[in-house]
Amino acid sequence: MFAIAITLLIIEIGVPHVVGTESLSEKLVELWPSYLGYAISFLVIGTVWANHHNRFSLIVRSDHILLFLNIVFLMCVAFIPFPTALLADYIPGTDEHRTTAVAVYSGTLAVTAVFFTMLWLYAAGNHRLIDRELDPLLLRTMTRRYVLGTILYIMAFALAFVSPTASLALIVVLALIFVLPEPEGSRSTRRTRRRSERG
Amino acid sequence: MFAIAITLLIIEIGVPHVVGTESLSEKLVELWPSYLGYAISFLVIGTVWANHHNRFSLIVRSDHILLFLNIVFLMCVAFIPFPTALLADYIPGTDEHRTTAVAVYSGTLAVTAVFFTMLWLYAAGNHRLIDRELDPLLLRTMTRRYVLGTILYIMAFALAFVSPTASLALIVVLALIFVLPEPEGSRSTRRTRRRSERG
Amino acid sequence: MFAIAITLLIIEIGVPHVVGTESLSEKLVELWPSYLGYAISFLVIGTVWANHHNRFSLIVRSDHILLFLNIVFLMCVAFIPFPTALLADYIPGTDEHRTTAVAVYSGTLAVTAVFFTMLWLYAAGNHRLIDRELDPLLLRTMTRRYVLGTILYIMAFALAFVSPTASLALIVVLALIFVLPEPEGSRSTRRTRRRSERG
Amino acid sequence: MFAIAITLLIIEIGVPHVVGTESLSEKLVELWPSYLGYAISFLVIGTVWANHHNRFSLIVRSDHILLFLNIVFLMCVAFIPFPTALLADYIPGTDEHRTTAVAVYSGTLAVTAVFFTMLWLYAAGNHRLIDRELDPLLLRTMTRRYVLGTILYIMAFALAFVSPTASLALIVVLALIFVLPEPEGSRSTRRTRRRSERG
Repeated sequence: MFAIAITLLIIEIGVPHVVGTESLSEKLVELWPSYLGYAISFLVIGTVWANHHNRFSLIVRSDHILLFLNIVFLMCVAFIPFPTALLADYIPGTDEHRTTAVAVYSGTLAVTAVFFTMLWLYAAGNHRLIDRELDPLLLRTMTRRYVLGTILYIMAFALAFVSPTASLALIVVLALIFVLPEPEGSRSTRRTRRRSERG
Repeated sequence: MFAIAITLLIIEIGVPHVVGTESLSEKLVELWPSYLGYAISFLVIGTVWANHHNRFSLIVRSDHILLFLNIVFLMCVAFIPFPTALLADYIPGTDEHRTTAVAVYSGTLAVTAVFFTMLWLYAAGNHRLIDRELDPLLLRTMTRRYVLGTILYIMAFALAFVSPTASLALIVVLALIFVLPEPEGSRSTRRTRRRSERG
Repeated sequence: MFAIAITLLIIEIGVPHVVGTESLSEKLVELWPSYLGYAISFLVIGTVWANHHNRFSLIVRSDHILLFLNIVFLMCVAFIPFPTALLADYIPGTDEHRTTAVAVYSGTLAVTAVFFTMLWLYAAGNHRLIDRELDPLLLRTMTRRYVLGTILYIMAFALAFVSPTASLALIVVLALIFVLPEPEGSRSTRRTRRRSERG
Repeated sequence: MFAIAITLLIIEIGVPHVVGTESLSEKLVELWPSYLGYAISFLVIGTVWANHHNRFSLIVRSDHILLFLNIVFLMCVAFIPFPTALLADYIPGTDEHRTTAVAVYSGTLAVTAVFFTMLWLYAAGNHRLIDRELDPLLLRTMTRRYVLGTILYIMAFALAFVSPTASLALIVVLALIFVLPEPEGSRSTRRTRRRSERG
């Protein structure tokens, strides 16, 4: 589903129509907010995709609450192409329109982050649906990471009303941070180490 | 295929165009029927997806009638983005248009439910294509669940002509019910129990 | 890729716009060529999908000619949504337009069938890329089936110039025939039998 | 993701609208730049897909830099439908517009090739993320192939400003070359040989 949402982003960019002696190159350059929106959303969805994949490799059981939270979370991710198109259309508009567009965009990402964190808190709380042998310290580090990320996305939303540019910059930084390695001593490393120690 | 149909839903929501001094925020709020349609259809397709996945884990053989019924069933699911867009466009319209839109929407879901139930009745009848060791009592509970669900979707269709709002409310309730756990003693639980008892 | 092409078909059907006192129901009924095109193409792609899947379960090796033929074949399948939209738009048009639309549609299917048959002839010739133990008699039956199917799709194309309706009817019949069971003694059955005989 | 980008290409081709006594056939013939763009892009993405698949079968470890390079590379691939639509719209236009469209198209492919090569250089350098037993000679042959390919795509970009037609021709030739077999003694062959020698 991530693969589809991420690939659909390009559909929202329409080919420009030139009339008379207009320059196609200039028209293409004027489309820069569309390219920017495409790049940011691609990076965000790509990062969320990798994180979702990593998290579900730790979740070894399932129940209907997890299923429901996951549907709502995916509903948010699949929604992203819409605020991306909005962003592309209204970044070059009036100040008021730009603020609205960036607020809707960062707001969508904040709500997505909230549901991702809820999903993780539900699955990881009391080791409810995850590997029972997972190090509680490691879990707490992950949880802190998600809660912090959510708070920062909500701040990006608030920032949109002050400076849309700063809000978008924060979103890019957040995506780049969450594509970075997780805290030292991640599960797979520890496991491998333990196995090789046994061997 | 479910993943694709569910992600395509967002394409049907177009970015609003503001003219002159119109407010973008107001225009975005006016799009609420689109968001509502997106959310309902996402929930419905997500639930059907999970149910289809669970059912096919019980179906261990295949034949050409099952293949044909499955193609027709998927044809109904992949059709859902169209009545969803119709719903979004005509919920704010005249009473007559709203009734038509909701009737087409709930009618599509009713036909989808009919084919899902036919598929299940065909596969489960005389244990035709399912695990022969499955508890007949459990099968009967599942069958009753599908037949009941189908009747309720047909009722939602009929209700559209009386009250479109009540029809949509029933559809949301049905999606939430079918995302709920299946009857006690589901196959996997029994299996696990039996295995652990053997152990 | 089949899953995506089949699900994209719905995008080509636009929601009708009613003006003034027009009836939405009537407008929806007038869209019947769109529903017909959707249903036929869904059936055709679904059938081709199942056949492609079955054939590739017999193909156990690969080379670059097969890869190239497969890309061209998939290029034809992924093209189908375009003639489907053409069909929907011009079935209600003038006789000349209807003939053109049906000819392009059936022509696309004929070319698709030609490449599918070429792919099979290449893979199965001298057991080039398939299981070497496969019964030559069975192979010949399959090959005959593909060659016959291709001839019939070419006939559907020719028929479009005489009677577009007859051409479409033949295409539906062909899709229904190819969803039917393959000749007796298919590989999997024989294998199972042999295995159970050994047991 | 490749499967989705490749299938989305068809969405960019709109059904022509005929007015009055215009000929539908002529209108369809006039769409040839759309068919050409579709065919070239399908071939290019299909070839890149196969190459990406083959390369990732050699990459046995992963890290966050690879993940990031892969996201940027996929961002380029998923972007291809946009310059394809641009190509289709402006090939029949003025010389200046045709040059711009072909330059954007070939430029996109060149940037895609650059990121693919960077990804490979990063993964293969010092056997960083690939099978440590891979023959260094074979690796050097592969690397040379990628670097050469990238240079040729950049030449296709430069050529667009001299002759758009020659640029497109070079792109088709490149796609056909990269669908051809890799240099003799590919990993799988060597492995099989070694295994059979052991046996």
